[in-house]
Amino acid sequence: MTGPVTGLISAARGLVPADIVYRNAEIFDAFSCTWEHNDLAVKDGIIVGIGPGYRGNRERDLAGAYLLPGLIDAHVHIESSLLVPQEYARLVSAHGTTTVIADPHEIANVAGRAGIEYMLAARSGLPVDILYLLPSCVPATPADVGGAILDANALSAFARQDGVLGLGEMMNVPGVLSGDGEVLTKLGLFPVRDGHAPLLSGQDLNAYVLAGLQSDHECTLLSEAKEKLRRGMYIFVRDGSTEHNIPALAALVTPYTVSRCSFATDDCHADLLAREGHIDRCIRIAVACGIEPELAIRMATLSAAERFGLSDRGALVPGRRADLCIASDLRPFTVLETIPAEPCGTGGRAIASASPLAGTVRCRVPTREQIGLYGNGKARVIGLVPGQILTEAREYGIDAAELPDTGRDLLKVVVCNRYGKDTVGTGIVHGFGFKKGAIAASVSHDAHNIVATGAGDDEILAAIGAVIRSDGGMAAVDGERISVLPLDCAGLMSTLPAGEVVRRLDALRGITTGMGGIAEPFMYLSFLALTVIPALRITDRGLFDGVGFKDVPVFLDR
Amino acid sequence: MTGPVTGLISAARGLVPADIVYRNAEIFDAFSCTWEHNDLAVKDGIIVGIGPGYRGNRERDLAGAYLLPGLIDAHVHIESSLLVPQEYARLVSAHGTTTVIADPHEIANVAGRAGIEYMLAARSGLPVDILYLLPSCVPATPADVGGAILDANALSAFARQDGVLGLGEMMNVPGVLSGDGEVLTKLGLFPVRDGHAPLLSGQDLNAYVLAGLQSDHECTLLSEAKEKLRRGMYIFVRDGSTEHNIPALAALVTPYTVSRCSFATDDCHADLLAREGHIDRCIRIAVACGIEPELAIRMATLSAAERFGLSDRGALVPGRRADLCIASDLRPFTVLETIPAEPCGTGGRAIASASPLAGTVRCRVPTREQIGLYGNGKARVIGLVPGQILTEAREYGIDAAELPDTGRDLLKVVVCNRYGKDTVGTGIVHGFGFKKGAIAASVSHDAHNIVATGAGDDEILAAIGAVIRSDGGMAAVDGERISVLPLDCAGLMSTLPAGEVVRRLDALRGITTGMGGIAEPFMYLSFLALTVIPALRITDRGLFDGVGFKDVPVFLDR
Repeated sequence: MTGPVTGLISAARGLVPADIVYRNAEIFDAFSCTWEHNDLAVKDGIIVGIGPGYRGNRERDLAGAYLLPGLIDAHVHIESSLLVPQEYARLVSAHGTTTVIADPHEIANVAGRAGIEYMLAARSGLPVDILYLLPSCVPATPADVGGAILDANALSAFARQDGVLGLGEMMNVPGVLSGDGEVLTKLGLFPVRDGHAPLLSGQDLNAYVLAGLQSDHECTLLSEAKEKLRRGMYIFVRDGSTEHNIPALAALVTPYTVSRCSFATDDCHADLLAREGHIDRCIRIAVACGIEPELAIRMATLSAAERFGLSDRGALVPGRRADLCIASDLRPFTVLETIPAEPCGTGGRAIASASPLAGTVRCRVPTREQIGLYGNGKARVIGLVPGQILTEAREYGIDAAELPDTGRDLLKVVVCNRYGKDTVGTGIVHGFGFKKGAIAASVSHDAHNIVATGAGDDEILAAIGAVIRSDGGMAAVDGERISVLPLDCAGLMSTLPAGEVVRRLDALRGITTGMGGIAEPFMYLSFLALTVIPALRITDRGLFDGVGFKDVPVFLDR
Repeated sequence: MTGPVTGLISAARGLVPADIVYRNAEIFDAFSCTWEHNDLAVKDGIIVGIGPGYRGNRERDLAGAYLLPGLIDAHVHIESSLLVPQEYARLVSAHGTTTVIADPHEIANVAGRAGIEYMLAARSGLPVDILYLLPSCVPATPADVGGAILDANALSAFARQDGVLGLGEMMNVPGVLSGDGEVLTKLGLFPVRDGHAPLLSGQDLNAYVLAGLQSDHECTLLSEAKEKLRRGMYIFVRDGSTEHNIPALAALVTPYTVSRCSFATDDCHADLLAREGHIDRCIRIAVACGIEPELAIRMATLSAAERFGLSDRGALVPGRRADLCIASDLRPFTVLETIPAEPCGTGGRAIASASPLAGTVRCRVPTREQIGLYGNGKARVIGLVPGQILTEAREYGIDAAELPDTGRDLLKVVVCNRYGKDTVGTGIVHGFGFKKGAIAASVSHDAHNIVATGAGDDEILAAIGAVIRSDGGMAAVDGERISVLPLDCAGLMSTLPAGEVVRRLDALRGITTGMGGIAEPFMYLSFLALTVIPALRITDRGLFDGVGFKDVPVFLDR
């Protein structure tokens, strides 16, 4: 420590010039949520001082712009952006972000330890410091096995690795409450443990907190968030592509509570990030919902840093990383520029990025027989619920030979195992509204098999084929037109630049809109195989009763 | 972890009874600084739940009393209480305190590593959890060597020991600012590092913070505290026997800043603790100065716990220690009862207390010749300054043979080395006002030699003799009357019960008052040998110029 520190001390005392001095800035004071008009001096990527009288090898006049710490996302699944970490970092870096706390839950379900290793390798040399919480629930349940099972032993191998902060969202609430040995062993591995406990309350919440879960990003009700905060949990107020919790939770954030509140995006697609922003967007929404800008900025900086014990960032004070965000305005919050302290994850040196995880889609296109449905009578149908990831268990009188029944909006839904098992499950879904065409994707929570639906077997198989040929992806087929976003990294993320991913998403949307269906069909499709959510699901074994927690046949009389 | 935790989880869920349920309490919510009328359940010394519906093997109706976390003192020198840790803990435990962060700086100056080991051993089985920051500056300066020198290597031996939290107040500000290698090595040993930087500001403050110092308890000005807080330091607002900083700093504490503010007593004598209280007293003063009671309580609980990373206490939530303080009133704050989770420092088992550190006063009573002063002419005189520990450098025309000169208030002051060196320094002091008698003490910052003053050599030697016979202590002699408080533990602390120590202090005060002198003469006496404070001091080598930082003779013409 002594070598570099003495140079920094000399710079702090003004005895030697800093690398750069930012002059004439409104500097955010995260500790009292006020602004200080002053200069800020940086050397070796570290803030050395605030005050007049510093000289720098470079100097820059900020002309009264706001200078604040780089923004922090307290909980995100990078895979949901459909971008590899390098592209994700480039994109969110443009919006003021310098640190994200990521849970590689999706890639771990596909590729296990190799997936986590890829994500760790991919953090090198980026403008955003990606710090990981290890996925605690792979698979989410025994009914949901994808490409890997990560037990406590597998996780412990990562415990002391650079870039690993702790244990990610513990979704296995029943396992915690029942004192499951494997769950408790996982909790015992890490001092930092994120929770995930939607609507948990009362004595069960007490038990969950007692077991060591420290945070929650699943609050949807103000009363829920207040109870969790009062019981000692850090609250991550979430706004992403599918969840918009800031309006409901805005009243939680006061000067008294702000040190316990942060922002999280959880799942955010590339197009939303590109068009509307990242944590800067959360700040804008929060301020629109009545939170003071200074409190919102504190949430996005110091509060998030403190929650994770990151005492090297989150505030503009001597000795911390010079992760800087320059803003021109507070209402609406407008980021002008992001200046990370240095490329992260390498001790300063940019190294070659990790190769993407290829070859994870190991299956062939099913035969027409494999996706065949045979029968006649009362059938179970998965019913979409607008705006929700849960589904309804519906029942219809159906002759399988007459599917698709676009009049009643009844389509086939197919899941193909993509881990070499050659298993295919077929069911019936209501609610997509497609009159023609089909869609397929290798993003399919949490096992990430290939899931497809559409108005016709040929189109369903064509869409699945397009996904397989791209080594994973999202595909839409409408007659002759076919559009694919290749997700060639683990079948979850694209190695294309962010801008190209956004264009491909637009192209897919163009086709699905023409198919006459609902908005965002891929989002609904991606959750149809998630067995932990009621009521009816589809897996590579066929229909799954998410309430009774067992496989069930399509036709009731079987 | 899994064994005991499953029982606690079951209790949290209400499936098995708790050990005790406190019903009908106003429970402090440290996270939003509000109160919640509810029940609180405890099992195995751990809070398992808050809410209705808990059953307990014992139940207790609090009848609406306030229930809050045990209070925390963020910075204290236990030695200053004159009590051994066991008695200190018993005393402050009566005032709501359950945790103190202590710096054994005094005993380390006397006995080095053995002193620290004694303090660590003495924490076992007490009602207060004593956690230590290791003294960073032993000796305070090369001119102040007492019984030990603790370098970084000596400190590192304690780094991972139970009960050791980090590095104590770094008073060597010049060493930090100059990048002194030994100082930086000490800072590098511990992630928790307390500061001590009175009036440090601007670029030097930036450098001090950059070097890794995280807190300060020396603020006397509001502007000083605001600047330090803004630069990232935790502020410990201090009120002890000699320093009363709460009125000046009260305006620092707001809902925005409270998470960075705590209370500290630093140096508090047994009589003040017994008569007026401990951190409960700080809360009363703070509320009288305009701080909301809820903010003051947060300072004394969660804020202090968070500053030291003590996530197991500071708030009444599931999973934390059931360190409880019951209060009947907020204005004035009135503690009814303190219930620590369990005896501390033993994993729950009370063990035999450490034997006191005896035999540390290794010297004989000086001869009359050794304390003789010879000369005539202009002489340097240490001038007391009322209410301050700094002194003035005065000059008088003096004939040594005519001392004491009670008319001009000029008395001899003597320091005897107590570490077997047989060195004795003699000087002249103005300001005690004694017309007769003498006092002596083995509490003498920071080397803790024996220091004495009085109106006559015989009485000075008698007082020194009394201190030596008691193996350390504070003694007052007035003709035939002699009163002693034995400080038989390292010459700093008494093994007597707290009540008896208070009675002995009263007896000493009775004699010194009769001697016609100033109030609290032992306090002034104890700082006369502190070489780091201007202007003129006395050591076992003789007079010391605290400005020029060198030994000087009494008579100017020598």
